[in-house]
Amino acid sequence: MPELRKDPISGRWVIISVERGKRPSDFGIRVSPKKGGFCAFCEGNEHTTPKEIFAFRTNGKEPNTPGWSLRVVPNKFPALQCDGELNRVGEGIFDKMNGVGAHEVFIECPDHNLTLSTMPLKSVEDLLNAFHRRSTELKEDPRFKYILIFKNEGDDAGASLEHTHSQLIALPIVPHLVEEELFQSKKYYEYKERCIFCDIIRQESDAKIRIISENENFIALAPFAPRSPFEIIILPKQHESSFVPDSDFALLAQILQQTLKQMDAVLELPPYNLMIHTSPFKNEVNEYYHWHIEIKPKLTKIAGFEWGSGFYINPTPPEEAAKFMRAVKL
Amino acid sequence: MPELRKDPISGRWVIISVERGKRPSDFGIRVSPKKGGFCAFCEGNEHTTPKEIFAFRTNGKEPNTPGWSLRVVPNKFPALQCDGELNRVGEGIFDKMNGVGAHEVFIECPDHNLTLSTMPLKSVEDLLNAFHRRSTELKEDPRFKYILIFKNEGDDAGASLEHTHSQLIALPIVPHLVEEELFQSKKYYEYKERCIFCDIIRQESDAKIRIISENENFIALAPFAPRSPFEIIILPKQHESSFVPDSDFALLAQILQQTLKQMDAVLELPPYNLMIHTSPFKNEVNEYYHWHIEIKPKLTKIAGFEWGSGFYINPTPPEEAAKFMRAVKL
Repeated sequence: MPELRKDPISGRWVIISVERGKRPSDFGIRVSPKKGGFCAFCEGNEHTTPKEIFAFRTNGKEPNTPGWSLRVVPNKFPALQCDGELNRVGEGIFDKMNGVGAHEVFIECPDHNLTLSTMPLKSVEDLLNAFHRRSTELKEDPRFKYILIFKNEGDDAGASLEHTHSQLIALPIVPHLVEEELFQSKKYYEYKERCIFCDIIRQESDAKIRIISENENFIALAPFAPRSPFEIIILPKQHESSFVPDSDFALLAQILQQTLKQMDAVLELPPYNLMIHTSPFKNEVNEYYHWHIEIKPKLTKIAGFEWGSGFYINPTPPEEAAKFMRAVKL
Repeated sequence: MPELRKDPISGRWVIISVERGKRPSDFGIRVSPKKGGFCAFCEGNEHTTPKEIFAFRTNGKEPNTPGWSLRVVPNKFPALQCDGELNRVGEGIFDKMNGVGAHEVFIECPDHNLTLSTMPLKSVEDLLNAFHRRSTELKEDPRFKYILIFKNEGDDAGASLEHTHSQLIALPIVPHLVEEELFQSKKYYEYKERCIFCDIIRQESDAKIRIISENENFIALAPFAPRSPFEIIILPKQHESSFVPDSDFALLAQILQQTLKQMDAVLELPPYNLMIHTSPFKNEVNEYYHWHIEIKPKLTKIAGFEWGSGFYINPTPPEEAAKFMRAVKL
C-alpha cells in the first residue's frame, strides 16, 4: 500500500510508492560528460562575460582578468532587470509590475572540469562566503524583498552552461513557496511556541533513519515527505532564521560537499537543483523560521497529475534513500 | 523590461520575459513519432490490461473483447490503491495515511495512431461523457474527496505509453493546488460577490487579445499569467462550479479538439499535460469556483529558481501565444 505523507513545512502531501521502491540504479538519469569547447566562464575568457561584480583573486590583479578563484557576474540573459522602479499597476482585475530584480551568476572555480562536489573544499567555503556578501549588499536596495540562491547542475536540471556555477535572484516580492513555508511554520510556532524545524531536527536525531550526514553544526536529512527521490535538506542544528549570520562557513562547506559526494556516488552524478531558503529581509530574525539548503536530484518527470494537484509521486521512500547515501564510504 | 504578473486564481506570480519573446519555432520540443510494436491498449489485446471498469461498445459483445470505441481500466501500476481504510496516523510531528484512492486509465480510441486532436469528434465527446460517468460513480465512495482527471501526451510530458489515453485519480484529500484556487476565488467572492472566473471571462471577451477560440458555451483563453508558454484554459461561459452538470458535451468536445488542433499546428505536436479542475465533492455547487480545463505544453524546463520560489519564467507573452493560435486556419 502506498503512503500519503504530509510535509509539515510546506503543507504539501506526497505519495510515497513504497511498493515500487525504486533503487538508485533504476533511474539512470545522469549529467552528460562535459563537452568542453569555448566557455565564457573559463579563465582567460573574462572579457566575454558582463563585467564582474565581485571576485576572489589570488594575484591582486585587475578585475575581469585571469587570476581569480571565484567570480560573480551579472547574468547575460537576466530573468529580471536591475534598472527601473517597481511600478505596480492593474490591468482590469489583473495585477502586474515591472520585472525589477538582480540576477547574478557565481562562477564557482576557474577549472572547467570540476564540480561543486569535486572542487577544493576551500572553494566551496568561498562560494558560501560570496553568497553571503552579495546578499548583504543587495539587501540594502529597498526595492528587493527576498533573495533566492540556487544552482542547476546538468542540462536535465536546467543548466544551460556546463562550467560549474550558481545563481542569485533578488526579487521584489517574497516567493510563493517561501510564503507557504513561513505560513506553516508560523502556525506551528503559534501553537507550540517552538520552531518546527528545530523540532524536526530533534525528532530525526533520535529516530536516525533519515539522517544522511552531520557534523558539529549541521545536519543533512532525507525529508519525511520529499517531492522526489533522494531529496536532501541541510539545516543548522541550532536555531538560525536567516542565511547565515552565526554559521561556520567551513563546517557548512564540509557538510554540503560531503552530502553531494554521497549523492553523486549513489546516483552516479545525477542532474540536480539546489536552493537556499531563508527568512525575508523584513523579518530576518525570528523564532519560527529556520534557513536551510534543499537539494533535489532530477530523476522523475512532472506530469499532469503533479501539475494539476501539486501532489508529487515519489517512488523511493526517504528512509531507503538515506540508507543508500549513509552507506557511501568517502 | 520583463513583466511580473500575478495569476488571480492561484495567487502565483510569473515572470514574462517580454524581450526574449520566444516564438513557436524556438522551442523545438515535439512528441516523438509513434514506434508501434505490441500495445496493451490496442484492440485485440484486451486481455493484457486489468479488467475493464467501463466501455462504450458498438457490437454489444462481452467486456474485455474487441468491439469497443472507448475503454476504462484500472491503472496497472496505480499511484494509490483502492482497497483499505484511510487510517490517518502521526509519526511524532509528522502526518501520514494509507495511500487509498482510485487510479483509472481511459483508452480514448482503439486506433493506435490517432490522438485527442485527430480522433473523430464523437470519440472526444464520448471521452468527456466517460469522465463524467466515472466521476459520478466514484463520488459515492465516502473515502474520496476529490477527483483529478488528467492527460499526459508524449514522453517528455510523462506519458509512458504512446497509445492515446487519459487518467483519473480519486483522492482522499483535496489537492494543494485546488485548495489554493478555492482560497483565492473565495476571497474574491467575499469582496466582490462575484465569481472571479466569470469576471475574467467578461474582461477577456472585451479585451479580445488573449482569446484562442470560442463557441456558444465555451471559451479558450491564454491566461494572463501562465506558468509556461502557450498555456491554455478552457471555461464554460456561464457560471458552473463543477464538471460538468449543465454543459453540453458536444460543444465542449468541439472547443477542446479545435484548441488542441490550433496548438498542434502552431507548436508542431508538442508534448503536453491536460488537467480538469473542479469543485471538491463536499461543495460541488457554489458561487465562487468555476470548473475549467488547463492545457500546458511541455516546452520549458523546471529548474532551481522555479523549485525554490514557485515563480515561473515564461518566455512567451500570452497575448502573442493567443495570436499565433488564433491565426491557425483549420
